Amino acid sequence: MSATILDGRPLAKTIAEELATEVAEFKQKHGFTPAIAVVRVGEDPASVSYAKMIQKSFEKGGMGFGLHALPEAASEAEVLALVADLNADEDVHGIIIQEPLPKGIRPEVIVEAMSPDKDVDGVHPANAGRLAQVAPVGRPPGVSDYFVPATPAGGLEILKRHNVEIKGERAVVVGRSNIVGKPMALLLLREDATVTVCHSRTANLDAICREADILCAGVGRAQMIKGDWIKPGAVVIDFGFNQLGDKWVGDVDFEAAREVASMITPVPGGTGSMTNVMLMKNVLEAARRQAAR
Amino acid sequence: MSATILDGRPLAKTIAEELATEVAEFKQKHGFTPAIAVVRVGEDPASVSYAKMIQKSFEKGGMGFGLHALPEAASEAEVLALVADLNADEDVHGIIIQEPLPKGIRPEVIVEAMSPDKDVDGVHPANAGRLAQVAPVGRPPGVSDYFVPATPAGGLEILKRHNVEIKGERAVVVGRSNIVGKPMALLLLREDATVTVCHSRTANLDAICREADILCAGVGRAQMIKGDWIKPGAVVIDFGFNQLGDKWVGDVDFEAAREVASMITPVPGGTGSMTNVMLMKNVLEAARRQAAR
Repeated sequence: MSATILDGRPLAKTIAEELATEVAEFKQKHGFTPAIAVVRVGEDPASVSYAKMIQKSFEKGGMGFGLHALPEAASEAEVLALVADLNADEDVHGIIIQEPLPKGIRPEVIVEAMSPDKDVDGVHPANAGRLAQVAPVGRPPGVSDYFVPATPAGGLEILKRHNVEIKGERAVVVGRSNIVGKPMALLLLREDATVTVCHSRTANLDAICREADILCAGVGRAQMIKGDWIKPGAVVIDFGFNQLGDKWVGDVDFEAAREVASMITPVPGGTGSMTNVMLMKNVLEAARRQAAR
Repeated sequence: MSATILDGRPLAKTIAEELATEVAEFKQKHGFTPAIAVVRVGEDPASVSYAKMIQKSFEKGGMGFGLHALPEAASEAEVLALVADLNADEDVHGIIIQEPLPKGIRPEVIVEAMSPDKDVDGVHPANAGRLAQVAPVGRPPGVSDYFVPATPAGGLEILKRHNVEIKGERAVVVGRSNIVGKPMALLLLREDATVTVCHSRTANLDAICREADILCAGVGRAQMIKGDWIKPGAVVIDFGFNQLGDKWVGDVDFEAAREVASMITPVPGGTGSMTNVMLMKNVLEAARRQAAR
């Protein structure tokens, strides 16, 4: 048996088209353009290229984009002043603080200075906490509106658009980062999966992975998860994006895994393709909330 | 084999004595008394008796206590005004909002109105989020100071004071409430356990419980977890407190479980005994942070 490939690219394209229509309607109705502000301090190459990718998607989707780049030598106070300006700016609906920040600038201080209402990447503790506290789907949420980090939100979207049953299933999340592993675990819990979180200290990782009906990998180690770690018929969501020689691979050994899994995301072209459109979705949502206030 | 009984009462007494000494030193050094404000709307009997218990422990420990009881008919605006007063009051270091709140008062609005710096019960999303985002022990936390809900903090304290190995162990938490299950899961993850969260939609709950080296129950169903659901030698932390006929029992069938487990908390006298002292610890910590500002 060979797994269905959960190709993120056509799905991202579909969502981008849906969003373009919604954005156009929004602009007509409310007379302003949902816009993101990207804050960068220094010129980390990965941050530079990610910002360019955001710009391209936002402009293509008819949404606003502003880059606020401070020099590497900027002080924490300067970054805080910029964030305060962006919080107050009614034409900015979403803010992203690019990491890494230079030494001497405390990420948690900058992130907490952002208005949670503009934290479209879901990294402010208030948003992380609302996701941690939200009731399961179908019950009153019990928390205020919140944002979920774009990458795990994209992983969940892939599962939902392929009608993968989540409720009551065993999900295993390998990796506990704040932008992938932990929010993915909380999203799956919100969807009523029974969720196990694994990490570098986990013993018998292979056996635990084999328990998973839904296996999510977000560790950043090339092909670490082997084919025989996967339960036959499992659904595999690979958030990894690692350079191996001259190609990019995921955290899962794709060629071996596809022979065992029922569905699997490829790398590249899987979850990574979804991140940008999920971010756009969050910015449109932030603009909607502002319009409703 | 019969399990070691993890009696919370002598441990709570020890911690209360440690705290009384620390509080006396704090008062001498800083010239003010760490104090809690309890907010209640209406006269829910369980809330009334819990407030009395808090008062007794705080007064015994040399700490300040104030009850702010509003009538059942109070409006949300009145409750918010009270919370704003308490946020601004320098003589108040910790605030607890007792739930349930009367209909028409949105708990999430009241809770989010509290200053996270005074949220000694760890229920504000900013505190829940910092716990969700904190790095594992031994690494730079990456988040601001935070508070953990007293009940799971007490459960962890029991494990630590009995030198239970947590790192790399499999922990299963049954129940996903915001004041017990989810924060306990995040605490165990912070301590490097491999953590599974189970709940009402979990299939094969008995088999999953049997995977646990550390089994934590916080579901509120009398003796739901049977003796043969427990892995021989496991450590069992029971957060349940359920009336069964004329006695109080936990979520675990204690008599059966003690024959299988290596350690187990009794009910009553286990985790419940720890909650108050952990709350006192949080209030002292809040006062320390105020003194340091």
